[in-house]
Amino acid sequence: MIKIGIIGAGRIGKVHLKSITNNVPNAVVKAMADPFMNEETENYVKSFGVEKITKDYKDILSDPEIDAVMVCSSTDTHAAISVEAIKAGKHVFCEKPVDHSIEKIQAVADALEGTNLKFQVGFNRRFDHNFAALRKAVDDGRIGDPHIVKITSRDPEPPNPAYIKVSGGMFLDMTIHDFDMATFLVNSDVDEVYVQAAVLVDPAIGEQGDVDTAIITLKMANGALCVIDNSRRAAYGYDQRAEVFGSKGMVTDWNDTVSSAIVLDENGLNGEKPLFFFLERYMQSFTAEVCQFADAIENDTEVPVGIHAGMQSVKIALAAKKSLEEHRPVKLSEI
Amino acid sequence: MIKIGIIGAGRIGKVHLKSITNNVPNAVVKAMADPFMNEETENYVKSFGVEKITKDYKDILSDPEIDAVMVCSSTDTHAAISVEAIKAGKHVFCEKPVDHSIEKIQAVADALEGTNLKFQVGFNRRFDHNFAALRKAVDDGRIGDPHIVKITSRDPEPPNPAYIKVSGGMFLDMTIHDFDMATFLVNSDVDEVYVQAAVLVDPAIGEQGDVDTAIITLKMANGALCVIDNSRRAAYGYDQRAEVFGSKGMVTDWNDTVSSAIVLDENGLNGEKPLFFFLERYMQSFTAEVCQFADAIENDTEVPVGIHAGMQSVKIALAAKKSLEEHRPVKLSEI
Amino acid sequence: MIKIGIIGAGRIGKVHLKSITNNVPNAVVKAMADPFMNEETENYVKSFGVEKITKDYKDILSDPEIDAVMVCSSTDTHAAISVEAIKAGKHVFCEKPVDHSIEKIQAVADALEGTNLKFQVGFNRRFDHNFAALRKAVDDGRIGDPHIVKITSRDPEPPNPAYIKVSGGMFLDMTIHDFDMATFLVNSDVDEVYVQAAVLVDPAIGEQGDVDTAIITLKMANGALCVIDNSRRAAYGYDQRAEVFGSKGMVTDWNDTVSSAIVLDENGLNGEKPLFFFLERYMQSFTAEVCQFADAIENDTEVPVGIHAGMQSVKIALAAKKSLEEHRPVKLSEI
Amino acid sequence: MIKIGIIGAGRIGKVHLKSITNNVPNAVVKAMADPFMNEETENYVKSFGVEKITKDYKDILSDPEIDAVMVCSSTDTHAAISVEAIKAGKHVFCEKPVDHSIEKIQAVADALEGTNLKFQVGFNRRFDHNFAALRKAVDDGRIGDPHIVKITSRDPEPPNPAYIKVSGGMFLDMTIHDFDMATFLVNSDVDEVYVQAAVLVDPAIGEQGDVDTAIITLKMANGALCVIDNSRRAAYGYDQRAEVFGSKGMVTDWNDTVSSAIVLDENGLNGEKPLFFFLERYMQSFTAEVCQFADAIENDTEVPVGIHAGMQSVKIALAAKKSLEEHRPVKLSEI
Repeated sequence: MIKIGIIGAGRIGKVHLKSITNNVPNAVVKAMADPFMNEETENYVKSFGVEKITKDYKDILSDPEIDAVMVCSSTDTHAAISVEAIKAGKHVFCEKPVDHSIEKIQAVADALEGTNLKFQVGFNRRFDHNFAALRKAVDDGRIGDPHIVKITSRDPEPPNPAYIKVSGGMFLDMTIHDFDMATFLVNSDVDEVYVQAAVLVDPAIGEQGDVDTAIITLKMANGALCVIDNSRRAAYGYDQRAEVFGSKGMVTDWNDTVSSAIVLDENGLNGEKPLFFFLERYMQSFTAEVCQFADAIENDTEVPVGIHAGMQSVKIALAAKKSLEEHRPVKLSEI
Repeated sequence: MIKIGIIGAGRIGKVHLKSITNNVPNAVVKAMADPFMNEETENYVKSFGVEKITKDYKDILSDPEIDAVMVCSSTDTHAAISVEAIKAGKHVFCEKPVDHSIEKIQAVADALEGTNLKFQVGFNRRFDHNFAALRKAVDDGRIGDPHIVKITSRDPEPPNPAYIKVSGGMFLDMTIHDFDMATFLVNSDVDEVYVQAAVLVDPAIGEQGDVDTAIITLKMANGALCVIDNSRRAAYGYDQRAEVFGSKGMVTDWNDTVSSAIVLDENGLNGEKPLFFFLERYMQSFTAEVCQFADAIENDTEVPVGIHAGMQSVKIALAAKKSLEEHRPVKLSEI
Repeated sequence: MIKIGIIGAGRIGKVHLKSITNNVPNAVVKAMADPFMNEETENYVKSFGVEKITKDYKDILSDPEIDAVMVCSSTDTHAAISVEAIKAGKHVFCEKPVDHSIEKIQAVADALEGTNLKFQVGFNRRFDHNFAALRKAVDDGRIGDPHIVKITSRDPEPPNPAYIKVSGGMFLDMTIHDFDMATFLVNSDVDEVYVQAAVLVDPAIGEQGDVDTAIITLKMANGALCVIDNSRRAAYGYDQRAEVFGSKGMVTDWNDTVSSAIVLDENGLNGEKPLFFFLERYMQSFTAEVCQFADAIENDTEVPVGIHAGMQSVKIALAAKKSLEEHRPVKLSEI
Repeated sequence: MIKIGIIGAGRIGKVHLKSITNNVPNAVVKAMADPFMNEETENYVKSFGVEKITKDYKDILSDPEIDAVMVCSSTDTHAAISVEAIKAGKHVFCEKPVDHSIEKIQAVADALEGTNLKFQVGFNRRFDHNFAALRKAVDDGRIGDPHIVKITSRDPEPPNPAYIKVSGGMFLDMTIHDFDMATFLVNSDVDEVYVQAAVLVDPAIGEQGDVDTAIITLKMANGALCVIDNSRRAAYGYDQRAEVFGSKGMVTDWNDTVSSAIVLDENGLNGEKPLFFFLERYMQSFTAEVCQFADAIENDTEVPVGIHAGMQSVKIALAAKKSLEEHRPVKLSEI
C-alpha cells in the first residue's frame, strides 16, 4: 500500500483525495496539507479516513511513512515544493504546469538526477478514454505514419479577468494541455511554433494583454504537422476533440455527452451538448493518471508523463508567446 | 436499344420517363399512353423526345417496335394490362401492387408461363442505396445467419381520407413495401403474420375501418423473426430504416438527409430531418430498378423482382388484414 | 445518515456495498449478511468499514439501528425476506424479480399495506443515463403522445445451460427488465402480450424448454404499442437500445462504448463495440437507484420503482410465457 | 431558353453537357467546341442533341444565337478565351482557376467593366449540399459571429508527377478550392497567409519542388481565423469537411458515403468510406452551379461566384507560395 500525502486542499487536491480513496487500489491518502486548512475542509478530509491533516506541507515531507506526494498547491510553488519533496526522498506527482520558468523546471530535473524517484506531471488528458484511444490507434499502426495532428480545445467560459493576469496567458494556462496532447498523440517533441491569434471573445481579455482565440501550428520533430485551435468560450460547452491523420488513414473522436439520446421532431434531430465542466468531462482521467503513478512506484517502472513532458510543454508555450509577439514562426531551440 | 412504352402518365409514369431518358443508357421511351392525356402533359412528354403519344394503351401493345411496357396505370388495371401486354409479347415492368387479388396476380403468373418474357414488379426500395447495402451485408455473410429483421416505416403524412377508402387499407397500400422488404432483406418467404394495430394518428382513418399505427410480426420461412412498425404520420418526415441481426452481428442504417451539417449551440446538437417526400428519398432507386430491368432484357437474365415477389407481398398483406380482424396469428397458407 | 444492511454478499450485493460507500452521501452500510460468508469476503466487506458481518440475515433485521435493508439474496428468498424485513420495520430495496409467483409478490404488497415503509425494486435500467434521458424526453412532451415503443435487448452471451433450468425462462430472467422498461418509458401498464419466439442461438437452450430469440408485442394500457426484440447472444456485445415514437416526434438512443474514437482507413470507418459486460454498462445506474432510494427514505417521498412495478413486470412475463405456449395474444387480466 | 456553347470537350465539359441537358430547365447546349474533337466525342455530344460541333471555339463566339459560353478548356487559355467571349457579348462561366496570373485575371475583370454580362467562376464546392448548409447556418446567424473556420481537404490520390509540374503547385491546383471555401463560408476576403508544409506522401512530389501535406493559416479580413489542412493522399478516400465556430456555436459536417449502412460485429462498428472520386462526391454541385448561372442570366441578377472570387482565390494561393518560400506570414497586399 503506497502512502500518499496531498499538498494543497483546493479543488484538484480534493479530486485526488476522493479518487485515490475510492478507486486506486494500491494507494491510500495518509496526510493532507494546506496553509488555509479550515474546519470545513478538515472535516471533509477526515471523512476519507486521512490520518494527518496539517497547515504545513513540511509535516508531510518529514513523515517517513509517506512514500509519495501530490503537489496540488498554487502553480508558483510547484517547482520548489517538488525539489524539496525529491530531496526528502518522496516520489512526486506534480500538477501542471510544473512552472512557467524553464530554469525552475530544470531545477526539478536536476534534483531528480541520480535518484530512483518517480516524478509525474498531471497532464490528465492523456488518460482520458477518448484521447488514450487515439494514441492507441496510432501506436497500433492503424493510421500508418502520422502526417497531420488536429486538436480542438475550446473552453466553455473564459476565466475571470483577475485570473487572466496571473495565469501566464492563454498558452501557459490553457493551451499547455494541447501542447502536451500534440506531443502525446504522435509521441514526438516539437521543433517550431507559429501562432495566429485574436481577441474575439471578450475585449477585457485583450486589455490584459492576452488573446482568447488562436490557431497554432506546430512542426513536430518527427516531421508531422500539427494544428491546435483554441477559444476561451464555446457557447455549447467544453469542446475537446482531436484527430490524427497518417499514411494509412485517420483516427478522430467526438465529445462526451450525458446521454446518447436524440430527439427527432419537426425541427430536425436534437442531441445533447458536450459535458460542460472539466471535472465532469475528465473525472475518469484523474483516477487513471494516479493509478498509473501508483503502479509505476509499486513496480518501479517508468511514469507515463515525466519531467521531459513537463519541460517540453512549457517550452512550446513560451515559443508560442514569442511567435505571437514577433509575428513569425519560432523554433523551440530559441527558447 | 430497348424501346419502351409507358402506360400511364401520372406521377410515377413521369418519374420513369425522366429517369429512363436521362439515366438508363440502353433504353429509350418511344411511346406513352394515358386516357386523360392533355396538351400540357403531351408537351411535357414530347420534350423528352417521345415519338408516340396516345390516349389508348393498346396503341402501344400493338406497336411491333416496342420491346417492353411500364404499367403505371391505376392499381385496379395493373393485372389486366399486364396480361394483355404479355400476350402481345412485351416484357412488363408493373408498378406495385400487381393487384389486391391473389387470383388476378395468378392470372399474370399464368400468362407468363412458358414465355421468355421478363416481368418485374416495381418494389423500388430494394434498389435504394441503403437497403441494398443491408442486403449486400447479409449476402456477404457479415452478420451470419439472420435471426431478427426490424423494419421501421413511417410516412410523413397520412393520405387524404378519400384515398384511404380505395387504398385497400394500410397493409395493401403502405406496408406492402415493408412486406417485400422483409422478404428481400433475408431472401425468404413468410410463414405467419401477427398484427397489433391501432388508430392513434387520426380518428377519421378509423372511421373508414382502417388503422394508422401497427406493429406486425412475421415468422419467416427460413426461421428468422421479423417486426415491422408503421405509422401513417411521423412529424419529422419520412422514416425508413431497417436492421438485420444475425449469428455474427447486425447491420443497420439511418435515414437520408439533405446535408450532413450539424449545429452545436447552447441548445445542444441540431441536425437535419430525414428527407420528407418519397420522390426525394427514393429517386435514385427508381432509376436503378429500371436499369436492372433493361439489363435483364438485354442479357436475358432473371429480373431482380419477379411475379413471385409480387404475389408474396400481397399474400402477406391479406394475412395481416385477417390477423387484425381475427386478432390471432395467421399462416400464409390460410390465404 | 441512513444505516443500511445488505442481505446477500454475491456479485450484486458487493456492487451495492461499494457504490453506497463511495457514492451515496446520505447512506452508510452498517451490516452485511450471507449464509456463505467466508474469510475472503469478510475481509473485502470489512475494508469498506462495515461494522457487522454475519451469516444470519436475522441479525440485521433485529438490529434497531438499521433503517433499511437491501435484499440481494437468491431470487427464491426475495419475497419471504422482504416480508420479514417489513415486519421488522425496515425499508426494503429488493433485487429483481421480487418473485416468479404473483401470490408471493402479493404477500409483500399486503405486508406493506398500512405501513409507511419504502419498498423499491431493483430495476436499475430505469436509472441508466440513456434510458432516463428517453423517459425525460417523453415527460417533457418532446415527442407528444407516445404511439410506438421499441426496445432492443440482446445479451452478449447466453447463460450456461444449468442456469437456464432454474432461471424461470428467458421472459422471467432477461426480458423482465425490458417489460419494466416498456412500462417505464411511457408510464403505463400493459394490457396484452403476444410472443413470437424461436431457438436460433443454441439448441441446448431449446432442449431445456426455453427460447433464445423473441419478438414480443405489448399493447399498453394507454393505447401505445410496444415491441421488444431479444436475443441471448449478440456477437458484438451487450445491445441495449430503445426508441419512443409519438405524435410530435421520436426519441432514440445508442449503446455506450469505451471511447468515441473512430478510425477511417481503406476498409472504411471503424468504431468500437458496445460495452460487453452488464456491470460496465450499468454501473452508474446501480449507484443512481440507491441514491434515489436513500432520498425517498430521508425525505419520506415515493420510491421511483415500487411494488406495483415489481408485480406488473412479472405478470407481463407470465403472460408472455402463456402466449408462447398457446400461440395467441394473452391479456394481463388472464394472469 | 438560354443557349449555351461549351468550349472544351474534356471531362468537365462533358459533365456540364450532361447536367445542363438533363437538369437545367432553362438552358440548352447548342454548340460544343474542342480542338481535338474526334468521332467518338462527336457522337457522344450529338446524342445530347447538340446542333453545332466544331474544332474552333471562335465558331461559338461568332454565333449570334449563343447567349453564354462555358470555358472548359485548359487553364492557360481560360483568361484569353474569357476576354474574347466577353468582347463577343457572351455571358461566361469559366472553370477554376481563371488563371495563375493576377494580371490576366485583371484583364478579364477589365473586359467585364461597363458591360452587363455575367461572369461566373466554377467554384462548384460552394454549391455542394453540405458546404451550402454550413454557409446557410452562418448566414442564418446560428453560430453568431464567426471566429474560427476549419477546412479539411484531402485528395484520395496524388496526381501523376508529370501533372504536378504544370499544375502550378498544390496551392494553385488543389488548395485553391479551399481558399475559395474559406472566403465563402464566412463571406470575407483574406488578409494574411501562413503556410507550414511538408513532403510526406511521395518524395517524387518534393523532387518537383512541390509539397503534398500542408497546414495553412488564414487571417480573414473580418477578423476570423481560418485553418486548412491538406494532403495529396488520404488512404480512405476523398476527405472534404469544414467547420465554422462562432460566438453562439459551431456548425460542422461529415463526408458523404454510398450508404448509411453500418455493421456491428465482433470487430466493432464498421461503416463506409467517403466517396472516393470527386465526380461522385460533387456531381450535384456541378448541376447546381450552372442552374444558378442560368438563373442569373435569365433574371439579370448577380452571379453567385464572380470575378472578385476568382481573383481572391489566386491571390491567396500566390501568397501561400510566397509564405512557403520565405517561411513567414505574407499579407495579401504584398501580392
